[in-house]
Amino acid sequence: MRARDLAQEFPTVDLGDDALVAARTMAESGRPGLVVLDDRGRACTVLPGSQVLRLAVPVYVQSDPHLARVYDEKAADELFGKLSGKTVRDLLPDAHDHAELPVVDPDATSIEVAAVLARMRSPLAVVSEGDRVLGVITVSRLLRALLPAAPDPTGHDEPRGSTSDGEPELR
Amino acid sequence: MRARDLAQEFPTVDLGDDALVAARTMAESGRPGLVVLDDRGRACTVLPGSQVLRLAVPVYVQSDPHLARVYDEKAADELFGKLSGKTVRDLLPDAHDHAELPVVDPDATSIEVAAVLARMRSPLAVVSEGDRVLGVITVSRLLRALLPAAPDPTGHDEPRGSTSDGEPELR
Repeated sequence: MRARDLAQEFPTVDLGDDALVAARTMAESGRPGLVVLDDRGRACTVLPGSQVLRLAVPVYVQSDPHLARVYDEKAADELFGKLSGKTVRDLLPDAHDHAELPVVDPDATSIEVAAVLARMRSPLAVVSEGDRVLGVITVSRLLRALLPAAPDPTGHDEPRGSTSDGEPELR
Repeated sequence: MRARDLAQEFPTVDLGDDALVAARTMAESGRPGLVVLDDRGRACTVLPGSQVLRLAVPVYVQSDPHLARVYDEKAADELFGKLSGKTVRDLLPDAHDHAELPVVDPDATSIEVAAVLARMRSPLAVVSEGDRVLGVITVSRLLRALLPAAPDPTGHDEPRGSTSDGEPELR
């Protein structure tokens, strides 16, 4: 299977997008981060959710989270008021601290994509054709494609019902 | 809102679980990682998906992913055959390289959890009562709880339909 067949939609934001809109996109996406597109529409980095919180939560509360208990619910609105008027560019960590974003060719094989994620310790790769982003391959999507069908035909494993069938439970 | 109200189910594995079962759990979960529980059932770290791939994909292919093109589809089964008989403990990076896992008290406020995620640059926190894991709070769940309702009452922002209503599209 090739990267173009594995690519899925993934939330993206532009560098110039409003920071509060990015925070909402992340909230609604259920994802731990967003792919950031540069001014030419090319994927350039990932904006981690924790980075949004770093800009919103006062530094003295980050240093001692117990101080957060003095905040009431209303204060949360004010936290995110700080994001208003800022852009995604302002949310990103310093350039040298940016998450390096793996980009793969649409013709890359699934094992090639696995090698790239392994080497870069990344949870996802962007599939790009020239400057155009076709989609994203997450590590779990890749594992679904690569893993031999359960039960394991080699017979070495006896997958447990609770983790191999349906949603895993929190134990 | 308190951490106990925000806690959600999240896939977990035990240190002694079979590595191939962990890989399947990750594939089915749609998550970029799994919470790892130690022998006493306490959350001790996160197993990132890329770590599973690091053990499966040969080192020479990780060094030069283009070499992956010599693999055919069948070879993928053999890659993951390597995981068989290994445990989650074998998949984890060296102890000093473990992801530090934020653990919060069930009574922690949402802003306190935000401060912890911000400080530790983590996409999630585990909610624990003593040794018992109650669930996990992801950064996107936290943002849903903390963000003021859209449209922004300050009137500074005009959220765009494509990113504020429903699923964000890949642009």
